[in-house]
Amino acid sequence: MSEAYLKTSTALRVRFHECDPLQIVWHGNYLKYFEIGREDFGRKYGISYLNMKEKGFATPIVKSVCEHKLPLKYDDEFEVETTFINTAAAKIIFDYRIVCSGRLICTGQTIQVFTDNNSELMLNNPPFFLDWKKKMGLE
Amino acid sequence: MSEAYLKTSTALRVRFHECDPLQIVWHGNYLKYFEIGREDFGRKYGISYLNMKEKGFATPIVKSVCEHKLPLKYDDEFEVETTFINTAAAKIIFDYRIVCSGRLICTGQTIQVFTDNNSELMLNNPPFFLDWKKKMGLE
Amino acid sequence: MSEAYLKTSTALRVRFHECDPLQIVWHGNYLKYFEIGREDFGRKYGISYLNMKEKGFATPIVKSVCEHKLPLKYDDEFEVETTFINTAAAKIIFDYRIVCSGRLICTGQTIQVFTDNNSELMLNNPPFFLDWKKKMGLE
Amino acid sequence: MSEAYLKTSTALRVRFHECDPLQIVWHGNYLKYFEIGREDFGRKYGISYLNMKEKGFATPIVKSVCEHKLPLKYDDEFEVETTFINTAAAKIIFDYRIVCSGRLICTGQTIQVFTDNNSELMLNNPPFFLDWKKKMGLE
Repeated sequence: MSEAYLKTSTALRVRFHECDPLQIVWHGNYLKYFEIGREDFGRKYGISYLNMKEKGFATPIVKSVCEHKLPLKYDDEFEVETTFINTAAAKIIFDYRIVCSGRLICTGQTIQVFTDNNSELMLNNPPFFLDWKKKMGLE
Repeated sequence: MSEAYLKTSTALRVRFHECDPLQIVWHGNYLKYFEIGREDFGRKYGISYLNMKEKGFATPIVKSVCEHKLPLKYDDEFEVETTFINTAAAKIIFDYRIVCSGRLICTGQTIQVFTDNNSELMLNNPPFFLDWKKKMGLE
Repeated sequence: MSEAYLKTSTALRVRFHECDPLQIVWHGNYLKYFEIGREDFGRKYGISYLNMKEKGFATPIVKSVCEHKLPLKYDDEFEVETTFINTAAAKIIFDYRIVCSGRLICTGQTIQVFTDNNSELMLNNPPFFLDWKKKMGLE
Repeated sequence: MSEAYLKTSTALRVRFHECDPLQIVWHGNYLKYFEIGREDFGRKYGISYLNMKEKGFATPIVKSVCEHKLPLKYDDEFEVETTFINTAAAKIIFDYRIVCSGRLICTGQTIQVFTDNNSELMLNNPPFFLDWKKKMGLE
């Protein structure tokens, strides 16, 4: 495994309908922010939902974790940092950090697996994903 | 057109994540409540999303209206009343009323059209829908 | 009433979690897009949720309408055009148009009223709003 | 710590707007199901959001985890099992299991902390919570 890592940063702003009666972002909405980061990553590095769909695969989430340090409030501007975590397993792992005005808001992780056109779980990495890893300098 | 009309009533309770920083249900969530009423109607009268999908049709929403009289708050228990509005056009129209403790919270309407398996708009009512209307005493 | 009108345009992209099993944006999510347009308008012209909160007012939505012409699909890039509609009544009215690749996706409207710190409806326009209108060249 | 444990089971049905283009419940919506289970627990055992608010406390989520075994599809009927996990720390921990037709769909956990009226984190359990624990036979 190389030392290389792949990362994107996505600038967002808290929307009114994302906030709850405590005047903060409802905790479940952070999974939306993570998804937006992951989609940005996919577009930047050529491994998006649509790229994978074209190859005949879907990548459902099998685990998500979110740890909150500080709340986000209405109208806050923040960054979602999305980092690809390399693994030999037939999985796609991303780590997330949300930062606002230099302060860490939350960290998180998602794990995805590969399913084929019949929704069957792939036990091994699909060839297109191994090719992608090689192209990215990951082995 | 007969005088008959078809109606369902669905009991719901406001959930925390449906409320906004004003401590009331976020206005867009009423479209979710209307959908839940419409789904209940479909199950009761045999004209649900799944029934229609099986026949080869989808029924996308082309218009929705919501008029708010009073707010709903967290934990409020309320009823969604869903009424089928008969029309000769190739459309499905529902009226909605949301009522809480005997007070009218909001009214609304949705209009749906029929699209076939190729997402083409149907200009005439599909046969299965005419059959359903006849069965329901509507002409 | 002058001929002046006030308008913003907001660029957005469809997110995965906004799409439904028909592979299109779920109809209720257009109210989120309208809200994002409205918030942009408020920031640009100094009449945002936070500006009004500071003055002691909230502006709950009392009516929303959305008419769909064409669907948006995953990853589509689109514009929300938000136009202020002047009225003498104690209301805030916005018209919306969503456009994607030069094609009209949907139109909509929201109507808001003013409530004070006790959640009481204001029957007349609050002074700060009349001042704002004057400043914007609306009478 | 006694062997006693506290648990609720909540019956739900998957709604159309909760499903994504893969025809399954969007992963982030499971946090909504967990919240509904937690709210049911709170109403049953007298420790709801409103009970705590009345005492002057909020209980923001500081960590959430969800592990998916099988997908839920549109119209599926399922149960959310919510179990209180006792701990000496100033935290509220719940474990969740979602089950559909006897099959385990997912497991999860949330951790909440106590904040007072000034949004300050409580380092010790508030007296009302210790009283509640005693009443429930937990020590």
